Amino acid sequence: MPIGEFELIDRYFRTAASCRSDVLLGIGDDAALLAVPPDRQLVAAIDTLVEGRHFPVGTAPHSLGHRALAVNLSDLAAMGADPAWFLLALTLPRADEDFLAQFARGMHALAQQYEVQLVGGDTTAGPLSVTVQALGLVRPGEALRRSGAQAGDLLFVSGHPGEAAAGLLLEMGGVEPPAGCDENLTALLRQRFLYPTPRLALGRALRGLASACIDVSDGLAADALKLATASGCGLRMDVGQIPLSAAAQAVVGPEAALRNALAGGDDYELCFTVPAARLAELPGRVANVKCAVTCIGVIDSAPGMRLCRGGSPVAMDVAGFDHFRSRD
Amino acid sequence: MPIGEFELIDRYFRTAASCRSDVLLGIGDDAALLAVPPDRQLVAAIDTLVEGRHFPVGTAPHSLGHRALAVNLSDLAAMGADPAWFLLALTLPRADEDFLAQFARGMHALAQQYEVQLVGGDTTAGPLSVTVQALGLVRPGEALRRSGAQAGDLLFVSGHPGEAAAGLLLEMGGVEPPAGCDENLTALLRQRFLYPTPRLALGRALRGLASACIDVSDGLAADALKLATASGCGLRMDVGQIPLSAAAQAVVGPEAALRNALAGGDDYELCFTVPAARLAELPGRVANVKCAVTCIGVIDSAPGMRLCRGGSPVAMDVAGFDHFRSRD
Repeated sequence: MPIGEFELIDRYFRTAASCRSDVLLGIGDDAALLAVPPDRQLVAAIDTLVEGRHFPVGTAPHSLGHRALAVNLSDLAAMGADPAWFLLALTLPRADEDFLAQFARGMHALAQQYEVQLVGGDTTAGPLSVTVQALGLVRPGEALRRSGAQAGDLLFVSGHPGEAAAGLLLEMGGVEPPAGCDENLTALLRQRFLYPTPRLALGRALRGLASACIDVSDGLAADALKLATASGCGLRMDVGQIPLSAAAQAVVGPEAALRNALAGGDDYELCFTVPAARLAELPGRVANVKCAVTCIGVIDSAPGMRLCRGGSPVAMDVAGFDHFRSRD
Repeated sequence: MPIGEFELIDRYFRTAASCRSDVLLGIGDDAALLAVPPDRQLVAAIDTLVEGRHFPVGTAPHSLGHRALAVNLSDLAAMGADPAWFLLALTLPRADEDFLAQFARGMHALAQQYEVQLVGGDTTAGPLSVTVQALGLVRPGEALRRSGAQAGDLLFVSGHPGEAAAGLLLEMGGVEPPAGCDENLTALLRQRFLYPTPRLALGRALRGLASACIDVSDGLAADALKLATASGCGLRMDVGQIPLSAAAQAVVGPEAALRNALAGGDDYELCFTVPAARLAELPGRVANVKCAVTCIGVIDSAPGMRLCRGGSPVAMDVAGFDHFRSRD
């Protein structure tokens, strides 16, 4: 006999470790009841993953549970927020217990790591799709926005954009690694797609220093341009400075690695700006953050994005991800 | 050329009237930034509507926009909360502008009525499905819960449960109204399914008086039992006291009207309990609330639900809605 909706919620979600004393009422009522500290503002994000669109059919449920939460925590990281709570809307074709057990394990492992608690949800039958809504907290005035950059601010990116896109290509069987390619490299790239790391520590470290911040989910070029545009500016990006992954270059080649970095998506790195006059503060801020940050360009006053290599302009098609327009 | 994701958000959602000064940063950044008053707790709910499961294929997009928000506001009503903000995760097969314009109009009309503001969202391509996450506010100690009922408390329901289920039957062509049946009655029933009214005013009126409250989304019998069980109690319900709708009785007959009231779902009425000693306070509280409230039973200490008519027990199958189990 199939497991019922309420039994399912009980077995896999309600019993998850509650880790926060500010949850006055969690799963099991009409809504959750949460205590917001008086000196905090609320940060709220929502993101959906649809099977066949955001993850290949047959993706391990453990990864899916992780990713659905991670992509939302990434949005909170881009705001410089501390994650607190999340809600889960899970639509799945049938109540497959093995799927649910793995999905819940992947989600709860990440939740425990960042001390964020599942406080409510909705499970329903339908085509596989996961929506997570994440709530975070930030002191008044400390939230990072997309819109604060000014001409002359330097542009940075964390990690190695393009790795996740290469990992997705490997997952989809869309690329054949060169003969003799180190399996650790392909494993690393797959891992970067399947288990993205939300850059929460970096977001926190940038509070009060970064003039603007965005998370890189639709491709570095598109997201950097969104940041600049929201700030009423444009940008110049030196493609030679983009911190390409050695693994991605080895597996898909240097040209595809660069294209993936600019237009691949799914990286969940942070792209941010720092005023030139405060550049000296950055190394100290990020010393204990476990990811590299690299200067890749500068904000300028002319709208739009100009790509260069060294001093010379380069022309590339770097359209980012748009769910209602096809891309290669 | 099809409309793109970002253009779509701009055209139909970002430009919606902003009605709240506590939205520090709305649609258009990585997350929304919201000011929670220091003397309020946060109430958070999430609900998904899937095409073919929660609404028939071909449902008017205007109704869908209304319902997706209304079912979440109903959860806030059941907590006695004031609605404040919501986020929208919209998955649709293609960016159909006519669909979007109507959907947004239906959603925004309800949002404006209750002064709740759309502050963020995610649009993606996939099978039609709408997830709304609603945030409300309540003073510490004032939230209504499912778990506060005690033996001897009287059980109430608002409105006329079963109307929405009859309306859905009409929408699906699953019932033929009797010859000569007043078209206003069928129109009313369809309206109750397509445009449910969240009982926010009633929820507010019950703060500090109702000992427990739940919204009726899965059928009155199942939801009343959930309330009693969460309170560590059981209940006796007099089916003869259930305020059946005259319209539903005329269109589907008295027997089906009762079955729909008990097990139909989609009503979004409130089911609540009041201690017998405080019953005299109820009429004054609900005098200005635009829906009837009717006493239908009593909480008792024995677990489970006992249905009766007058003093005599009655046996009926009243299983409520469970997304992973089929029903008639």
